[in-house]
Amino acid sequence: MTTTLYDLAGAEDDRRFSPFCWRVRMALAHKGLEVETRPFRFTEKELIAETGQGRVPVIVDQGRWVHDSWDIACYLEDTYPDAPSLFGGEAGKASALFINDWVNRTVHGKIFPLIVHDVHEHLADKDKDYFRTSREKRIGMPLEDFCAGRDNKAGAFRNALAPARAVVEVEPFMAGRAPAYTDYLLFGAFQWARCISPFRLLDDGDPLAAWRGRMLDLFGGLARRAPGYDV
Amino acid sequence: MTTTLYDLAGAEDDRRFSPFCWRVRMALAHKGLEVETRPFRFTEKELIAETGQGRVPVIVDQGRWVHDSWDIACYLEDTYPDAPSLFGGEAGKASALFINDWVNRTVHGKIFPLIVHDVHEHLADKDKDYFRTSREKRIGMPLEDFCAGRDNKAGAFRNALAPARAVVEVEPFMAGRAPAYTDYLLFGAFQWARCISPFRLLDDGDPLAAWRGRMLDLFGGLARRAPGYDV
Repeated sequence: MTTTLYDLAGAEDDRRFSPFCWRVRMALAHKGLEVETRPFRFTEKELIAETGQGRVPVIVDQGRWVHDSWDIACYLEDTYPDAPSLFGGEAGKASALFINDWVNRTVHGKIFPLIVHDVHEHLADKDKDYFRTSREKRIGMPLEDFCAGRDNKAGAFRNALAPARAVVEVEPFMAGRAPAYTDYLLFGAFQWARCISPFRLLDDGDPLAAWRGRMLDLFGGLARRAPGYDV
Repeated sequence: MTTTLYDLAGAEDDRRFSPFCWRVRMALAHKGLEVETRPFRFTEKELIAETGQGRVPVIVDQGRWVHDSWDIACYLEDTYPDAPSLFGGEAGKASALFINDWVNRTVHGKIFPLIVHDVHEHLADKDKDYFRTSREKRIGMPLEDFCAGRDNKAGAFRNALAPARAVVEVEPFMAGRAPAYTDYLLFGAFQWARCISPFRLLDDGDPLAAWRGRMLDLFGGLARRAPGYDV
């Protein structure tokens, strides 16, 4: 039975840029589930009204609606225990919750000023006003000003990645010899950028650049095939 | 057979304040090993010359010398696989390496300006010059100036703990229902402070304060019995 994923999309249906949706997309592939994605725009909240809230990712699996990327990961782990584990046990799950918060706060926080204007440029026209208004209210200035001089902010982003770099310097994946949910957590941030921004986030020699390449290759190149910028 | 731990000590033999030694102390208790600790001062490097370096923690277990807190944890996990696991499997170990780096960099970085002068005040006389000189070279100012106005810096420390707070808001321990090495990583930082500083690091209502209380109770109150400040 096919699982449906409501997946944030830009002006083009196949420009899927939500870091949270990418976590779920990778987790669904990890569990070996057949997936049909449906493009969703910020302003199409009626499509997911069943969940009682307005944000994606949302999945419909076996007739059950589940929202919130962390809750979806937990749902998949509990519902498909015989498929490869997303967390590798209880301690791994607790640490994944730690890394979930760290990515949301630190990685997304540092990447946001690098790419938020590029997000806007790729949105469907009907989403642009909502996006600009809500984001400019949060940051207190025009998107263009916020992203100006981003070359000078890239260093702070790269420095903030140090704990992840410490892992991939000695292991091929964040979860060790094979990828799992902690990889998808961090990879979602990179895929967010890759789908909408030509900005170069990592230096070639960074062990995280090699890790990102391995992530793009997973599941038959699922993430690499997604339209984006090859930087 | 008893395992020996060379354990950083202050002016009094039983004032054991190294965060890295506390990780190991708790990990040894987790593995159920019988331990004899030996007080070590910064300037007594000849005691651990066997390891070819000058820092504790160092353990001698079954005649084997092992140094570096992370390497000791890995050694214990590999050498005592039938005792309770420190990592809970491969994904848990990789995530623990992530959290190891995060604690070293972020937690220690933010706690250092709150307590480094208190460390100095508790050192053996023969360690004081070495400590003041090496630390003041690093920070570029007298220890007293660096720690001035610490009330204003405590907020940055508490904010930096957000990813750990996200876990202990829903689980009793960083590793889930039972404590493991990720708990000891973070707890070492708190025990570092507790042993030498009267400064209050956490608000009473902070979920991390309750977690710290649970950590102090582990192994028959091992960490709570250590001389320190009950703040």
